[in-house]
Amino acid sequence: VTVSDDNSVLRKSATLRDVALAAGVHPSTASRALNESTRPMVKVATVRKVLSAADRLGYRPNSLARGLKMSRTFTVGVLIPDLTNPLFPPVVRGLEDGMAGPGYTVVAANTDGDDDKERAIVEAMLNRRIDGLVVATARREHPLVQELARSGIPLVLVVRTVDDSPVSAVVGDDHEGIGLAVRHLVALGHTRIAHVAGPQDVSAGLVRYHSFLSWMGHVGLPVDEDLVVFTDAFQEAPGAEAFRTLLDRRVEFTAAIAGNDLIALGCYDVMAERGLHIPQDVSVVGYNDILFCDKFNPPLTTVRIPSYQMGLKAAELLLDAIKSPGDAPISLRLKPQLMQRRSTGPVRS
Amino acid sequence: VTVSDDNSVLRKSATLRDVALAAGVHPSTASRALNESTRPMVKVATVRKVLSAADRLGYRPNSLARGLKMSRTFTVGVLIPDLTNPLFPPVVRGLEDGMAGPGYTVVAANTDGDDDKERAIVEAMLNRRIDGLVVATARREHPLVQELARSGIPLVLVVRTVDDSPVSAVVGDDHEGIGLAVRHLVALGHTRIAHVAGPQDVSAGLVRYHSFLSWMGHVGLPVDEDLVVFTDAFQEAPGAEAFRTLLDRRVEFTAAIAGNDLIALGCYDVMAERGLHIPQDVSVVGYNDILFCDKFNPPLTTVRIPSYQMGLKAAELLLDAIKSPGDAPISLRLKPQLMQRRSTGPVRS
Repeated sequence: VTVSDDNSVLRKSATLRDVALAAGVHPSTASRALNESTRPMVKVATVRKVLSAADRLGYRPNSLARGLKMSRTFTVGVLIPDLTNPLFPPVVRGLEDGMAGPGYTVVAANTDGDDDKERAIVEAMLNRRIDGLVVATARREHPLVQELARSGIPLVLVVRTVDDSPVSAVVGDDHEGIGLAVRHLVALGHTRIAHVAGPQDVSAGLVRYHSFLSWMGHVGLPVDEDLVVFTDAFQEAPGAEAFRTLLDRRVEFTAAIAGNDLIALGCYDVMAERGLHIPQDVSVVGYNDILFCDKFNPPLTTVRIPSYQMGLKAAELLLDAIKSPGDAPISLRLKPQLMQRRSTGPVRS
Repeated sequence: VTVSDDNSVLRKSATLRDVALAAGVHPSTASRALNESTRPMVKVATVRKVLSAADRLGYRPNSLARGLKMSRTFTVGVLIPDLTNPLFPPVVRGLEDGMAGPGYTVVAANTDGDDDKERAIVEAMLNRRIDGLVVATARREHPLVQELARSGIPLVLVVRTVDDSPVSAVVGDDHEGIGLAVRHLVALGHTRIAHVAGPQDVSAGLVRYHSFLSWMGHVGLPVDEDLVVFTDAFQEAPGAEAFRTLLDRRVEFTAAIAGNDLIALGCYDVMAERGLHIPQDVSVVGYNDILFCDKFNPPLTTVRIPSYQMGLKAAELLLDAIKSPGDAPISLRLKPQLMQRRSTGPVRS
C-alpha cells in the first residue's frame, strides 16, 4: 500500500490529458465533455467516449483547481455555540441536508461563547474562502455579525438574530410560542405564572420575556415583578440558580415557563432538592423540545421549534444569497407547536 | 454593501504584491516572511515590516492556492450515521478540537446507514482532496472501508471497527465494559441476567454479546439461550421489539443488559407498557452514557464510554497517519466506567 505523491485519492489520479489521450480527443474537447455546463457543445458520441475513458481511468476533476477558477469553494461555514448542546445537531443536520443537493459542504465550528475564538474561527474560514456563513451564535449586539453583514459575504442567522440589522435570519416565532404556553397554563386554571427567563442579550431570551409580559396582559393576568427571574445562560445550572432565587422570594405561584428546556431541567433539579413535585406543586413548561424531553421525569411539556427545518430554511436563504448577493435580506419566523406532556397539570385547589 | 468579484472576504483582498510594496521588499521576501516555515530565513526587522504591512492591509493568504502547491487541503472528513443520534456529537466535537490546533477543518457527513449514500459522500470528499478520513459507520464487513484502507489514504475508524483489517481504530474496551455491568448485577444478587444485544454485523454489537457470554461464564452463571435477544439496529424501537420477544418467552430473569442506551430506552417503554417497574421487577443497564441518561425515569445505570476523548484520540491517530503514511496502523481501546444510577437495584426476593 503506497500513497501517491499528491496524497489525495484512491489511486494516482489520472489527469485531464490522460483522459483525452485515452479517448483520442484534444484535452480542451475532453474538458468541455466533462463539464456539465459545456457538455452540450460536444457531439454525443464524443461525450460518451470521454466519459467512458474518465470512468475507466478513475479520473477525478481537481476541485481545488476548479474552485480557484470559479472563485467558489462550494464550502460554507456554520458557527454554533457547542455541538454537544442538543439544540444544535438538528439545525446543523438540516443545513447540511439543504446544502448537499447543490454540492456544498458545511463546516461547523464551535465558538463556546468565546468572542475571540469566534473571531479566529471566522478569520480562518475566510482564509479558506468559504462561499457563505450561517451564524447560530448571535447576540442582539454582535460586532462581528455587523462587520460580516457590512462586508457583503452571504450571511444567514439562525435560531438567534441581532437587533436592527439588515441580515437574513431564520428564527422560531417565539411570540406565538410563549402564547401557546401561557394559554395552555391558563386553560389549566393557573393565574400565578412565573417566568424563568433566558439571557436578555440574546434575541430568544428577550423576545420570550417580552412575549410573556404581553400574553399575560392579553389574557388579563397581572404580572408580579417578583415572579420573573433571569438567567445568564440557557443552561441547566443557571436555570437552577434562578429558580432557587424565585422560590426563596416566597411569592405564591403554581406554574413556571422556562426560557428553554435546559433551564426547565434546572427547575426540575431544584424541585427535587426541595421535595416539591411537578406538576402537583408547580407546573413547568420548557421551550425548544430538545432530544429526550419526552423521557424526563416527568416528561416535559414544552414548545417545539422546528429545528431541522430551521437549518433547511437557512440553507435556502444562504443559497439565494450566494446566487444573488444584491437581494434584500429576508427574515423567516417558523411556527412553534405545543408538546403537551406530564410536567403541567390542573392548578392545585 | 457590495461583494468583491472574487466573492470571498471581508474586503477586496490585498495581494502578496501589495504587501511587498507597502513593506518595501521584494514579493519573494514578503512570501518567505509570511510563511512560518521559511520565516527564519528572513531578518527579524524585515519580518516585522512585512507582518505589519500584511496586518494593515488585511492580507489573507489564499488557502486554496497554498493547498494546491502543498498538495494538502487541511480538510479531513468524518462519516457518521446521523448527527442527531446523541452518541456522535461528542465524538465529532473531540475530533474537531483535536484537529483544530494543527489547522485542520473537519467536514462531517451523515450516511444514514445507506451504503450508496456513503459511497457518494466519500467520492465527493476525495474529489475535494481531503487529507484524511475518520469513519464512525463501520460494519464488521465493510467493502468501502477495505477499499479505503487499501488505497493508503490516511484513515481512522472510531466507535466501530472492521474484522481482520489493518486499519487504525479508536474504540471503547467493551469486554471490560460488559464486565463492569455483569459484576455490578452479580453484586446486587442477580443470577438470571438477560442480554438485549445490538446488531451482530457491527463490532460493538458482537463484542458486547461475546463479552456477555464470557463474563457470565467467568462469574459462574449459566447462560440460558432464551435469555438473549438480538436487535437489528442500536435504536429504541428495535430495542422495544426485542424486549417484548424476551418477555413473551416467559423465562424468569431479574436483570437485563442492553446493547446500548437507546435499546435500554426501548426496554423502558415495554416495561411501562406491561405495567412493570424498573428496577423492582427488572434491573436495566445501558451502554454508552449518552446525554440525559441521568434524567431518564428512572435514571439509567450505564457503562460510560469516553466519547469526546475517542474523537480526540482519533484526531491524534489521523494526524500521525497524515504525517507518516507508512506507519503501521494502531488500535486503541479506551477504558469504560460504570455509571451507577437508579435503574438497577437488589434482586427481588
